[in-house]
Amino acid sequence: MARLTLDISMSLDGFIAGPNRTVEQPLGDGGERLHEWIFGLASFRERHGRSGGDRNADDEVVRETLDTAGAVLMGRRMFSGGEGPWEDDPVADGWWGDDPPFRVPVFVLTHHARETVAKQGGTSFIFVTDGLESALAQAREAAGDKDVSVAGGASLVQQCIEAGLLNEMQIHLVPVFLGGGVRLFDQLGDTRRDLEVERAIHSPAVSHVKYRLPK
Amino acid sequence: MARLTLDISMSLDGFIAGPNRTVEQPLGDGGERLHEWIFGLASFRERHGRSGGDRNADDEVVRETLDTAGAVLMGRRMFSGGEGPWEDDPVADGWWGDDPPFRVPVFVLTHHARETVAKQGGTSFIFVTDGLESALAQAREAAGDKDVSVAGGASLVQQCIEAGLLNEMQIHLVPVFLGGGVRLFDQLGDTRRDLEVERAIHSPAVSHVKYRLPK
Repeated sequence: MARLTLDISMSLDGFIAGPNRTVEQPLGDGGERLHEWIFGLASFRERHGRSGGDRNADDEVVRETLDTAGAVLMGRRMFSGGEGPWEDDPVADGWWGDDPPFRVPVFVLTHHARETVAKQGGTSFIFVTDGLESALAQAREAAGDKDVSVAGGASLVQQCIEAGLLNEMQIHLVPVFLGGGVRLFDQLGDTRRDLEVERAIHSPAVSHVKYRLPK
Repeated sequence: MARLTLDISMSLDGFIAGPNRTVEQPLGDGGERLHEWIFGLASFRERHGRSGGDRNADDEVVRETLDTAGAVLMGRRMFSGGEGPWEDDPVADGWWGDDPPFRVPVFVLTHHARETVAKQGGTSFIFVTDGLESALAQAREAAGDKDVSVAGGASLVQQCIEAGLLNEMQIHLVPVFLGGGVRLFDQLGDTRRDLEVERAIHSPAVSHVKYRLPK
């Protein structure tokens, strides 16, 4: 069965987006700083239809991640681009543009049924209204031999952890303080548990630490 | 001038102590899990008057840390062992016992003046009532060529970061979720800033990432 994995950039103080998010600025103040390490990499540029770029340890990590995801699981706010009146608009098309970088089926958890949106490059957004377990089952079916990757946001990640559904997690720990915003691990409640460090790869720009979550 | 440094164990969800702290359990529920990686190391055992123990990469990191601290800066709650009515008791002797592991002068920031307490093995507790800058100046004087190390708690660490006083920080990132407790980086407010990764050393038990905080 396809594993459920997470790859996410987090600030040293625990945030995956800065404060003051809007639809124009879905990552909040300073949030783009979390992703600067990835923009110049060859694997990321290829995925966005560009050539060139750096081939280094960070690039290897990203390439591996992109290659292993056969389907994506996403919260509705991450699809729509942040909190606000648009987030439940059944015709809003999200903020991912015509050629989103996923290139696989993306299962969006939402309360509002709507038709599947097919984008260029292999990405489609499928809207699931009957809960996390159903969305995960559909994503597993679509992923085949590959992994299902949780894209976010934070509340969906926390749900997956609390429900014991997440198998593996790679945190890209970025050397920055954001001082506020969306915490990745905010509502874990009584989820006190040990993880296993699977591997750690480190560059001056970012530390990639991969954890296994035992059942 | 002596640098101000921090070496601290933090859970992956950002806590340096678990929930429900008491004077009997100053690390809170599950908090001792943050320090398990250190107990078996040769350097730690030596510091506590015992022989044997593991000599590995984690041990090297701890040995280096112990060797470079010439004085320690500490918040009053960390001296007294947690929050509660005892924390301002001018005769309470803290929870560090007769032979604390510091072996250098420890400057405790407090609102209550009291006499210096000399312990075995070179540790003394000096109580400073006129603020952080004064405590740091006294600690620097005592440290000589060595570093001043902030022992904690979290609010003192946050004060040092916000005031731009901290020069270097080594986070020992422990693969555990505590789900609640004392967050190390909770009140950084507008402290949005970049750090420089100086080095990273990993073991299955813990990831040691050392950061420089530019002025």
